[in-house]
Amino acid sequence: MSAVFHSSIQDGWFREISSQWPGQAMMLKVNKILHVEQSLFQDILVFESEAYGNVLILDGVIQCTERDEFSYQEMIAHLPLASHPNPRKVLVIGGGDGGVVREILKHDTVEQVVLCDIDEAVVRVSKAYLPHMAALLSSPKVTVHIQDGFKFLSEIKEKYDVIITDSSDPVGPAEPLFHKSYFQLLHDALAPGGHISAQAECLWLYPEELYSLKKMTSEVFPVTEYAYTTIPTYPSGQIGFIVCAGSPGRDLRTPVREVRDTRYYNKAIHTSAFNLPEFARVMLEEGKDIRPKLGGEPREATRDMPVEK
Amino acid sequence: MSAVFHSSIQDGWFREISSQWPGQAMMLKVNKILHVEQSLFQDILVFESEAYGNVLILDGVIQCTERDEFSYQEMIAHLPLASHPNPRKVLVIGGGDGGVVREILKHDTVEQVVLCDIDEAVVRVSKAYLPHMAALLSSPKVTVHIQDGFKFLSEIKEKYDVIITDSSDPVGPAEPLFHKSYFQLLHDALAPGGHISAQAECLWLYPEELYSLKKMTSEVFPVTEYAYTTIPTYPSGQIGFIVCAGSPGRDLRTPVREVRDTRYYNKAIHTSAFNLPEFARVMLEEGKDIRPKLGGEPREATRDMPVEK
Repeated sequence: MSAVFHSSIQDGWFREISSQWPGQAMMLKVNKILHVEQSLFQDILVFESEAYGNVLILDGVIQCTERDEFSYQEMIAHLPLASHPNPRKVLVIGGGDGGVVREILKHDTVEQVVLCDIDEAVVRVSKAYLPHMAALLSSPKVTVHIQDGFKFLSEIKEKYDVIITDSSDPVGPAEPLFHKSYFQLLHDALAPGGHISAQAECLWLYPEELYSLKKMTSEVFPVTEYAYTTIPTYPSGQIGFIVCAGSPGRDLRTPVREVRDTRYYNKAIHTSAFNLPEFARVMLEEGKDIRPKLGGEPREATRDMPVEK
Repeated sequence: MSAVFHSSIQDGWFREISSQWPGQAMMLKVNKILHVEQSLFQDILVFESEAYGNVLILDGVIQCTERDEFSYQEMIAHLPLASHPNPRKVLVIGGGDGGVVREILKHDTVEQVVLCDIDEAVVRVSKAYLPHMAALLSSPKVTVHIQDGFKFLSEIKEKYDVIITDSSDPVGPAEPLFHKSYFQLLHDALAPGGHISAQAECLWLYPEELYSLKKMTSEVFPVTEYAYTTIPTYPSGQIGFIVCAGSPGRDLRTPVREVRDTRYYNKAIHTSAFNLPEFARVMLEEGKDIRPKLGGEPREATRDMPVEK
């Protein structure tokens, strides 16, 4: 494998340098490059790291590592599922690595899981290099579609109790999955009393954008909440989720059923995940930025999430 | 300043490479090096970063950045203070940057703050480059001693309502501040009903060590708890605190007074900070490691999991 190179790896370190988080970057020491591929949609890299096991990179951005992926997968899945009284049919948009499906199947109420990822290469590569995540994609309860998630959602007739959008960042192939029209499709595909969750970036990096996102989703859903989890290998060490209910009055913050075999999630963490740091609470509730100003200059948002009016 | 160099900065990026967190490292883009000094105790570096304002580095490790320091300072201070009914005298060991003192003085009950840092250079450099943190070190309520904290604590006769240990990592000058004999000194310096908090590393990086630390402190204090906060520029994006009470029966998880002008802390975050992710809860309470095993071993999602009743 010594002939395999990738531009993001120098001197044996992968560096996650991106205009999405200017001025900061995570480094991971690389033992061995396992796979490099330009798929139809994105640049795919898998390496074995020194400290985090196998790592999947899409377009230069860390998607999951063996060591800490459970935090993200458990939280994006169990927040909407454990607060739902009886989830039977679940749809996943994105999530081709299979980690979210693994978590969904811990809910014994679930009879059917449909997954739609745009990129077959993610599914194929995950089965080869991240089997602890992808194994349950071949469960008899699971159907995998390789298709554009937006298009898939706009064409389906079936309704789902829970829909989870496990997307990459809102640049590249996942960009449409942050539009209001996408959230309207999610809303319309929910069975009565249904819940959604969606990957929604980092409150430390994008509080203004998350204010816009929450405002937009609250125009579509009667109940909309923001929650977050800690995860060392995502930018700034955390990532958040938009969690919404299609019917009014639903309490998303309180689990109504147990979840077995978790490593991050528990009942107290479920509730705590919605309790935001004061700067994020004030931003999401009041649209006000109370963070310290740096160097006396007004700071501009470094990236606009595409939020439709 | 173009003649100023530091070995941790290459190609315009500071890299926090350390044997304390092998295989991972944070990078921060450097606009300008502001100060380099070898003090009596440690290597000191201050730079202006592209995205995080001014940054203080000790022995190659990020101590604080203008952009996110409020998370750490608020939580290490307000967890023990807001759960104490009437803190009047407060002692800080370490904390020469002044950030913790700034937070302590938000409690109007506090009449007197004593700070003891081993290194005058940290105080001096912080006053010059981190004035938003260090300004209140010159408050008439505050006395600053430049001395070894362990020695200071072993010689004082006075008692304190709250003692906060704002140390660097347990290598270098702060190493003795993680010993049992140090926690015994803290215990003995508390007034009746007093509380302590101490910087206690990252639960993602050191769960086993934190199990040992909590076990040790519980041999000294009748109430001992672990809490954590999110902070992008600390290794893995979080840091934790040991919070203890010198008298039995005290509830450290519930604030009894309001705190004004916070950016991270609020009442819900106070309580949530003690709700640990399942892997950390199981480790700290039962000494068992349920995290995924890495690298070549058979991995079954449920292999190491405690069976739910």
